Amino acid sequence: MKNKVNMEFHNINSLKFQTMNAMDLFFNPGKVAIIGASRNPKSLAYQTFKSMIESGFEGAFFPVNPKADYVLGYKSYKSVLEIEDEIDLAVITVPAKIVPFVLEECGKKEIKAAVIITAGFKEVGGEGVFLEKKVREIGKNWGIRIIGPNCLGIINTSPQKRLNTFFATPLPERGKVAFVSQSGAICVSFLDHAREKGIGFSKIMSIGNKVDIDEVDALKYFKDDPETEIILIYLEGLAKGEEFLEAAKEATKKKPVFVLKVGRTPEGARAVSSHTGSMAGIDEIYEALFKKSGILRVYELAEMADKALVFISQPLPKGNRVAIITNAGGTGVIATDECVKRELSLAKITPETEKKLREKVPPYASLANPFDLIGDADAERYDWVMEHLLKDKNVDAVVSMMVPQKMIDMEEVAKRMAKYAKNGKKPLIPAFLGERSVLKPIEILKKEKVPFYTFPENAINAVAGLYQYMILKKFRKDEKEPLFKVKTEKVKKIIEKAEKSRDGFISLKDAFLILEYYGFNLIKWEFAEEETDLKDRCKKTGFPLVMKVVAPEVVHKMDVGGVVLNVRSEKDAIIEFQKMKNRFETGFKGVILQKMGKPAKELIVGARRIKGFPPLIVFGLGGIYVEVIKDVSFGLAPLAPSEAEEMIKSTKGYNLLKGVRGEKGVNINRVKDVILRASQLVTEIPEIEELDLNPVFAYMNKTVIVDARIKVFQN
Amino acid sequence: MKNKVNMEFHNINSLKFQTMNAMDLFFNPGKVAIIGASRNPKSLAYQTFKSMIESGFEGAFFPVNPKADYVLGYKSYKSVLEIEDEIDLAVITVPAKIVPFVLEECGKKEIKAAVIITAGFKEVGGEGVFLEKKVREIGKNWGIRIIGPNCLGIINTSPQKRLNTFFATPLPERGKVAFVSQSGAICVSFLDHAREKGIGFSKIMSIGNKVDIDEVDALKYFKDDPETEIILIYLEGLAKGEEFLEAAKEATKKKPVFVLKVGRTPEGARAVSSHTGSMAGIDEIYEALFKKSGILRVYELAEMADKALVFISQPLPKGNRVAIITNAGGTGVIATDECVKRELSLAKITPETEKKLREKVPPYASLANPFDLIGDADAERYDWVMEHLLKDKNVDAVVSMMVPQKMIDMEEVAKRMAKYAKNGKKPLIPAFLGERSVLKPIEILKKEKVPFYTFPENAINAVAGLYQYMILKKFRKDEKEPLFKVKTEKVKKIIEKAEKSRDGFISLKDAFLILEYYGFNLIKWEFAEEETDLKDRCKKTGFPLVMKVVAPEVVHKMDVGGVVLNVRSEKDAIIEFQKMKNRFETGFKGVILQKMGKPAKELIVGARRIKGFPPLIVFGLGGIYVEVIKDVSFGLAPLAPSEAEEMIKSTKGYNLLKGVRGEKGVNINRVKDVILRASQLVTEIPEIEELDLNPVFAYMNKTVIVDARIKVFQN
Repeated sequence: MKNKVNMEFHNINSLKFQTMNAMDLFFNPGKVAIIGASRNPKSLAYQTFKSMIESGFEGAFFPVNPKADYVLGYKSYKSVLEIEDEIDLAVITVPAKIVPFVLEECGKKEIKAAVIITAGFKEVGGEGVFLEKKVREIGKNWGIRIIGPNCLGIINTSPQKRLNTFFATPLPERGKVAFVSQSGAICVSFLDHAREKGIGFSKIMSIGNKVDIDEVDALKYFKDDPETEIILIYLEGLAKGEEFLEAAKEATKKKPVFVLKVGRTPEGARAVSSHTGSMAGIDEIYEALFKKSGILRVYELAEMADKALVFISQPLPKGNRVAIITNAGGTGVIATDECVKRELSLAKITPETEKKLREKVPPYASLANPFDLIGDADAERYDWVMEHLLKDKNVDAVVSMMVPQKMIDMEEVAKRMAKYAKNGKKPLIPAFLGERSVLKPIEILKKEKVPFYTFPENAINAVAGLYQYMILKKFRKDEKEPLFKVKTEKVKKIIEKAEKSRDGFISLKDAFLILEYYGFNLIKWEFAEEETDLKDRCKKTGFPLVMKVVAPEVVHKMDVGGVVLNVRSEKDAIIEFQKMKNRFETGFKGVILQKMGKPAKELIVGARRIKGFPPLIVFGLGGIYVEVIKDVSFGLAPLAPSEAEEMIKSTKGYNLLKGVRGEKGVNINRVKDVILRASQLVTEIPEIEELDLNPVFAYMNKTVIVDARIKVFQN
Repeated sequence: MKNKVNMEFHNINSLKFQTMNAMDLFFNPGKVAIIGASRNPKSLAYQTFKSMIESGFEGAFFPVNPKADYVLGYKSYKSVLEIEDEIDLAVITVPAKIVPFVLEECGKKEIKAAVIITAGFKEVGGEGVFLEKKVREIGKNWGIRIIGPNCLGIINTSPQKRLNTFFATPLPERGKVAFVSQSGAICVSFLDHAREKGIGFSKIMSIGNKVDIDEVDALKYFKDDPETEIILIYLEGLAKGEEFLEAAKEATKKKPVFVLKVGRTPEGARAVSSHTGSMAGIDEIYEALFKKSGILRVYELAEMADKALVFISQPLPKGNRVAIITNAGGTGVIATDECVKRELSLAKITPETEKKLREKVPPYASLANPFDLIGDADAERYDWVMEHLLKDKNVDAVVSMMVPQKMIDMEEVAKRMAKYAKNGKKPLIPAFLGERSVLKPIEILKKEKVPFYTFPENAINAVAGLYQYMILKKFRKDEKEPLFKVKTEKVKKIIEKAEKSRDGFISLKDAFLILEYYGFNLIKWEFAEEETDLKDRCKKTGFPLVMKVVAPEVVHKMDVGGVVLNVRSEKDAIIEFQKMKNRFETGFKGVILQKMGKPAKELIVGARRIKGFPPLIVFGLGGIYVEVIKDVSFGLAPLAPSEAEEMIKSTKGYNLLKGVRGEKGVNINRVKDVILRASQLVTEIPEIEELDLNPVFAYMNKTVIVDARIKVFQN
């Protein structure tokens, strides 16, 4: 530990002489200009400066305030340009309107990093939007990296730095957790909860409107930060989904990353946009994004704290078999229910362990997991049971709970729990189920820096977090997506030349051609532009056949009489051709003829691209499954084969595809092939906004695309 | 208030002279014998007695201990029989083996109520089971009502009583909440949480093994207890489901009843049975039971405390339109997501209110709900916004949240929140989102006896609880179940005489007859016992027809060649008849002939009775819906028409029944009729353990039962 600190110190000293990482400019500055430092104690500017001073910053401050000679005892400057020293970081708290002016001055002073605390930009709309744009431009022009505006800035708890721009917030306890938050208020609220839990932080960033530095920068930096072992992110919305995915993939390989993404519901997403002006996007994309990148999603602030807490000191379990210790049956039941809910299982101990346990456990105490040691269980009994459960080869983790018992020395029990929760090879999670009655044992656990919980559910959910991350790491494949041999250039040309509807849809014929160039297996089809083509084309497809109008403006063919089923002769085909031509007049470009498909399992495969994000791929069983019960699954392109398989398996209808009640199943590999080709198509052709293969007919030996729609971006 | 207390006092004095309610014996005794009162401070018996003394009991104690002359300063008796005074209540803490003996003495002493704290009965198995049976018998013989054994007993916080048998637990704060718990440990843990929340209690019962007094007695008593306004129950399992349902129905009409039922999962249920020896039963029955009785189910101890807290002081809202106030956008988003999850909606305020709000809210603060008053919002701004939101006709409830702001006088904000949370006509829910930073404002809210929360989710969930109870009360119909004119006696006779399979199944023919007596519409069927019957019977049903074997032992006909589809002639029928007769040999009793049904929507309607509970009715769409996606709904018989309708509507497949994609729907009223008749059948014929109508064919104008199974209880 000593060594580490010395090394760090060395690094900081040498930093000034090498090219600094942009983020290091923020977290490890030597000289800081406080622009807007105020003498009015009621002002945010004053409070920000005061926080920085009180945190014991190991560096030099240069307050800038044109109206004062001294601020809080420091010599003040009229402008950054008056400061003779080189400045590493500017912390800006002047009113929004003046920000562009002082930032310009920072540029002239060759300052390379600025934290803009000031609010009143994009989030207030109107002129704020314009001001924010200006700030971004000035930053780019001068090469200034910016955190904010509309944020609380940064915290570095390193004893060699002690940097804290959060106004009215004491420097948090030193620890291994890095926290990144789009909202400053959530930061403050979370720090307060974390303090009660004994969670310490390495570094904290409140990034506000993210005019420059954002979660992507944070992930890249914290991934390699030796002082950070756990990364927490509070997220409202992302602009750069693709870059986030790449950064997160790398980070989660090295450290657990937890994200609390709010704005999950449409209403919540609206609330996000009205308060920060950023788009929350649809939740399915985020869900798929987190999954693909190995991020552990949490749903509440309290849950984020609970999960972080256990990762600080506990090892990952090898499996999901949990032993539950309690001194009261009811709490064991609650913990058991929660285990099942969280996909953990109850460990079945060996007969040897059971025999061992019995030596110090009364005969009437239950030694079926949960292990109910009965109300009079004391430290010695707890110790014995923890020791032997941890030794059992069938146990991957132990949750050791105690209901307050005034007649028992609970502090001694807490010490024994701490003993096993430290230096353990398996996770041991202590829980004292109460409030005031358990303050003292909890104080001990906190002091010993081991996790503690006050409800059975939270203790179990913490184990679930460990298990989930273990699985992520273990089964991480980093599989390459397959690259089918396709004709990308030809597709690009079709899209370029294609006639598009007002909404951006291309014709059915163009869509079919694109699919063929990408190697999809289409139902046998022919195109007839003129009535005279029919004879020849009908022969090629064979009867009975389906006729579909080709008319770019007609997207929902079925609804407007653009589809005729079960055409049984050339004569009928001609009649229908004429009818369609009349019906659609100038929009009519011909008809597609298709052989009628044999009854099959109907599937849909689709894709949708939101700019800035990888395309979202959708899979589902067709017909009622999609329309009535919304049984669909999602993934992000480009998909690896295992991801495509996972998408298929995670639909409820999967059982049906495998075959039930004596019905034969379909060829799952062929289905996977359709999903993977769709993924490759939308990845390689970013012009496609929406792809809809619906229905896809799946059989025992093949899949066939029956109908399709492709929509391209307009402009 | 004064008056109420005086009245209560009067009641107690007069109680001794009237026939006392059994529960009053427990909660309002005058003279209490403490049997087993010990002088050893480490013993549970000593601690129990000490608790009782320290709580300041307003009555007289009579310790019983054959080995001591004095216990804790009280004169001690060798046996209850030595006491000259009449004793109202015995509190028993002697070892399990001696309990029957002292209970017998209580009988002789004519004591009518006993709390047995002692553990070591049914929950430990073996001799404990026998001891518990003995205790029950002695109680019955002597007419002694018993709470316990294996419990903590009772608490009555009334200043006129101050009764507390919970060892090592101080008397809780006085309040309006009654709490009943099967587990003593959960009681203690919950009391600890409740104390932090400022929740006060009227009475508490830890009922342990429930040898006599149980949740049913508790519900009946607390329903009419003027000191109780909210009832909380921690439940592991019920033996008397039917009685519980009736008692709960009555109680929920008058007061909100919250139940935390653990052992929800099969594993959890097993844990219940290993720790109390009681059966948890399947969770679907409990879910249906709670729904039918108007009970509000909660899933965590913390949630129970959160919900109880809001009911103590807040009125019910008129609707679900919530206004969210915050001083930080992010928390507003979290609250919004939670609103949607809890089926609340975001209130849309009137333009007049918006105008009014703007008078004191800065122009850049968002006045779209959630109302983000911005970081510098002080008490005055909060006050103004709360006042006008509460006045708005489009607002049903207000959640007023604050993220810690050291520069703001948070205590003053708390006072304003308390002002509106008291005496309000609409609920106002305060929340300070933090821990140590918000201790002072929270202290104020606690002192003012208004609810408070520290996470947005919990505050919203509290409103959801109020709204849910309002809906329950408002839409409570107490509708009578319909009584179809049926032939119950004839059915009873069939069941009595029916030949049953080893598993208790009756033959298909008997099942069909029973259904006909209950007015179900069966597909046209005939029974042919002999080959010679075929000609005539085939004519009656018509071709093509289905033949099904009648053989009591054959339950899964289909799997063993007991069903032949699509029989097209008399000749074929004869051949198949002969084949079946040979196949089933002596088990063969004949065949059922049915006209093949036309394609239809397939439904299933079923029922299952677990002894002690009302029958559970199951409804679902047939085939893949049931088998693949488990799309079924549940209700408890006897069902009211609205309940049957609710069951149909709550399946995902309901859309399909209504008709989608141009397909015609089915007659929902006819489906309802099937469910209601099934409900009446299993209600009136308690001999039926399982009823399975599968498939039921549903058409536009009718429903037809195609196949059925009936299983009856075996002894």
